[in-house]
Amino acid sequence: MITLPDTPTREHCLALDRADPLASLRAEFVLPEDMIYLDGNSLGARPRAALARALDIVEREWGEDLITSWNRNGWFRKAYELGDLLAPMIGAGPGEVVVTDSTGIDLHKALQAAIGLAPAGRRRILMEGSNFPTNNYMTQGVAAQLPGCEVVFTEGEGIAQAIDERLSVLCLTHVHYKTGAIHDMAALTARAQAAGALVIWDLCHSAGVLPVDLNGCNADFAVGCTYKYLNGGPGSPAFIFAATRHHAEMRQPLTGWWGHAEPFAFERDFRPRAGIGRMLSGTQPILSLGVTECGLQLARRADMRDVRAKSMVLTGLFIQLVEARCAAHGFRLVSPRDPQRRGSQVSFDHEQGYAIVQALIAAGVVGDFRAPANMRFGFAPLYNRFVDVWDAVERLADIMDSGRWRDPAFATRSAVT
Amino acid sequence: MITLPDTPTREHCLALDRADPLASLRAEFVLPEDMIYLDGNSLGARPRAALARALDIVEREWGEDLITSWNRNGWFRKAYELGDLLAPMIGAGPGEVVVTDSTGIDLHKALQAAIGLAPAGRRRILMEGSNFPTNNYMTQGVAAQLPGCEVVFTEGEGIAQAIDERLSVLCLTHVHYKTGAIHDMAALTARAQAAGALVIWDLCHSAGVLPVDLNGCNADFAVGCTYKYLNGGPGSPAFIFAATRHHAEMRQPLTGWWGHAEPFAFERDFRPRAGIGRMLSGTQPILSLGVTECGLQLARRADMRDVRAKSMVLTGLFIQLVEARCAAHGFRLVSPRDPQRRGSQVSFDHEQGYAIVQALIAAGVVGDFRAPANMRFGFAPLYNRFVDVWDAVERLADIMDSGRWRDPAFATRSAVT
Repeated sequence: MITLPDTPTREHCLALDRADPLASLRAEFVLPEDMIYLDGNSLGARPRAALARALDIVEREWGEDLITSWNRNGWFRKAYELGDLLAPMIGAGPGEVVVTDSTGIDLHKALQAAIGLAPAGRRRILMEGSNFPTNNYMTQGVAAQLPGCEVVFTEGEGIAQAIDERLSVLCLTHVHYKTGAIHDMAALTARAQAAGALVIWDLCHSAGVLPVDLNGCNADFAVGCTYKYLNGGPGSPAFIFAATRHHAEMRQPLTGWWGHAEPFAFERDFRPRAGIGRMLSGTQPILSLGVTECGLQLARRADMRDVRAKSMVLTGLFIQLVEARCAAHGFRLVSPRDPQRRGSQVSFDHEQGYAIVQALIAAGVVGDFRAPANMRFGFAPLYNRFVDVWDAVERLADIMDSGRWRDPAFATRSAVT
Repeated sequence: MITLPDTPTREHCLALDRADPLASLRAEFVLPEDMIYLDGNSLGARPRAALARALDIVEREWGEDLITSWNRNGWFRKAYELGDLLAPMIGAGPGEVVVTDSTGIDLHKALQAAIGLAPAGRRRILMEGSNFPTNNYMTQGVAAQLPGCEVVFTEGEGIAQAIDERLSVLCLTHVHYKTGAIHDMAALTARAQAAGALVIWDLCHSAGVLPVDLNGCNADFAVGCTYKYLNGGPGSPAFIFAATRHHAEMRQPLTGWWGHAEPFAFERDFRPRAGIGRMLSGTQPILSLGVTECGLQLARRADMRDVRAKSMVLTGLFIQLVEARCAAHGFRLVSPRDPQRRGSQVSFDHEQGYAIVQALIAAGVVGDFRAPANMRFGFAPLYNRFVDVWDAVERLADIMDSGRWRDPAFATRSAVT
């Protein structure tokens, strides 16, 4: 149990860091000097081992072993191996997860598989409209292919009420990308399944940072990315989980040769592979896939209960200090105040959020901004310290008290659209 | 014009290498000592620059610049930039190509887009049954989603005859993965379009090794990989081309946020991006994508006419020498004898092909084997030399004359299925 006094000081934070069972893991990451990186919910920091791993793949595996690497260096097995490495962290069993493609592509496969298994005649997919948009877009892409299929959007507490016998698939993101609110995976899964529907969970903002128990909740399918709290590297391949009970019957339409029963028989017609392998499509980006292993291995070294305990205090402390130090500056807490209902991020709304986030970045505190007014701060217990929270809020308070965020340089939007 | 006498010697080969306008490019690749690598049609060799590029992405872009790299280091633009870098080599214009996802996933998008643009009511896709299987499988996956859609398989010369007013999409691989035979892109495209169909070309075995003129042939869509003759690295992302005339109307169902008109507006509903960008889905594997640039840059330094001229002599010399030196050993040429109809590979059938290929690999000559009896040798003019052809055939003749291929060690099949 980690405890802080009502009015903590920087020294209290340093004491917590000294007592932190995860403290030694920070040295396994490379972080820029003087930067407080609170954006691991967008792109995780670089594991120290990633450099040597990338070098080895380029120099030895590609450069020297060339085509023989598919067997000799296990390239063919990598999607399965990384899936098995990840599985215990999300409550999945061996052979239930592969690391492959992108979250969106994997969501397409999961949706198609789930719809194929849902009761005949049902054509309704229920989602959260405020979800990270790519999930909505991918789902709309699936629905447009199925005559009569409708995507129903609802929000938060309305989800449970919207579940009824017309539903084929409930597709939710476990932790909300903006607010950090956690859905009750067990309760919503049970409710949807009681109505005869299947359930897909997106674990982008929960895998690697809070205990997830897919099989304990009887989840049907799940997807997620590996480049946030799993520190797999920029755009590292995503993962897809399918419960073993669905393996024999599930189908997805992106039927490439890696999903074939015998890829090297070079048969003309598709026959799905047994097991989770039928969720694979084609050749994977080996350099990105191979380096993903470094982040997964570090996450496996942590006890997910320690990670969660630290995460709740990091985020709670951040809320407490921002509200204490910046009370006059109009920040509105968007994330749940109850730590049990909050993922590992804290979001505040502020009309000038964009400029404030830019000013913070200039001051070495990296968070991010999501339109229209959302300032997001992610806390990665594997490398963020309690003292980082203190120092980040100090810099935020300084920016607000001094009005430095009003500098016109901080108002310029990036060219990316 | 490269010419060889009727009975060339090793010295003739060395003379050709000295006169080769592409000779200097070999030094830009790293190849193992004493290996003759004739498998660039499966996995291209490593560009020397790839190591520094991978290091820079891991150390600086990921490790130091972290999330800011999406703008600062151009991660968001990479799919477009690499597409534009590749475009001139395949006869495409700027803004017609993106590098993204895998060949199979991109083929799914191209098929869906083409079917959507084909005359209403038509539901037939024509392919070559002996095609690389993943194309057939992906097409079967698409067809299974469209009521009444049929995939018709035919072969070689039968393709032109099978084109009629029932056809929606002709989907062909430009150079056959086993035989190396080249389809007449201009004639088949014109014939299919005259019947009202759309045409998709798979350039996996032609991009970077022979002049391709997609727009000159009025192709509708194309896909291909970057890890063969374009030397992008193991599993490097694929490319997709869409002719500009289709950009406004084309649709594909893998509608992720990168294909949205305004990804950072975080709108609830999908609106397709203008231009080729709507062929994108989600976040790409940046490490693999970034390194792909090294191979594309090298290929751009070569004049594709020089590449093609050298390729025809390399493959022709290989056929000539194998037939001269191994006449008694039962090799049957599978590739076209006419160099104009042959891509940059030579395939021989041999009942003991598997063991012979293994014996060759043990002797430092790397080709590959495709069931049931196909020995494939790819010739990459950017790094393969004429003397390599001579030396490879010397080693093959030695293996056959000595019977060394009968060693039981060479009969053991790999565990990969």
